[in-house]
Amino acid sequence: MLNLDSIDPYMLRPVGFVRSKLKRREDCPKQGHEGAPDAWVEVDPAFSDGLDGIISGSEIILVTWLHEATRTILTLHPRDNPENPLRGVFATRSPNRPNPVGLHRVEVLELDLQGRLRVRPLEALDGTPVIDIKPVLRKSRDVYGGR
Amino acid sequence: MLNLDSIDPYMLRPVGFVRSKLKRREDCPKQGHEGAPDAWVEVDPAFSDGLDGIISGSEIILVTWLHEATRTILTLHPRDNPENPLRGVFATRSPNRPNPVGLHRVEVLELDLQGRLRVRPLEALDGTPVIDIKPVLRKSRDVYGGR
Repeated sequence: MLNLDSIDPYMLRPVGFVRSKLKRREDCPKQGHEGAPDAWVEVDPAFSDGLDGIISGSEIILVTWLHEATRTILTLHPRDNPENPLRGVFATRSPNRPNPVGLHRVEVLELDLQGRLRVRPLEALDGTPVIDIKPVLRKSRDVYGGR
Repeated sequence: MLNLDSIDPYMLRPVGFVRSKLKRREDCPKQGHEGAPDAWVEVDPAFSDGLDGIISGSEIILVTWLHEATRTILTLHPRDNPENPLRGVFATRSPNRPNPVGLHRVEVLELDLQGRLRVRPLEALDGTPVIDIKPVLRKSRDVYGGR
């Protein structure tokens, strides 16, 4: 079932999908802390054993694949504001980038027996594929922060 | 050249590669802050316009594809220590996971005209594909931290 080692090495397989009231790109806040709602992450049952150890109250990083993004843009005006000077996409958080990976630090509010996680805040669109989930580590300078 | 919109939507294309003195998995620290060295990221010239705005001293998140990982494991003993109880991979930072995405918060030490970035600390193996680069944002609760 999890025959991932035999596929193309650069091929992603979604492990779940976002279920959110955010149905259109124009409804999505640019950052989670800019008023993003709660959402559900439905983890594919094939991968639900991987959730063992995640509990309500955990902080996690959802790694998403921003499937509606444009992959051919290399420079843009940050925050879609033409008054901001052009910048390279790697110096911005725009979803438009060669590999449209999204990183979202969220709190787990609820975990049900079907492998669904209720999380907040999540600025991703309904239907966004989730490609990885990671714990937030607390060490100083960890990528996941530490406040 | 950047014909990424026409390929399989779940196919990654590396935007660069890590060049490091870490040549074997067993030499790699488990976390960057555990003694990882400086390393170079060689960005493919096709994508170097995307670097505009990244300067020496910037903190960035390298998103890598841990190409030597095993993609079929869903539970493991954290830190390869059999005394640690089994946990789901999504509750660990193990490279072994369905989609072996790595997140590395690093400082840019140097940026040359060939689109090479010298960064530290980086626990990734020599030859690791880089799939995305993102700025560290400073807002409270941002995924990238804020100290």
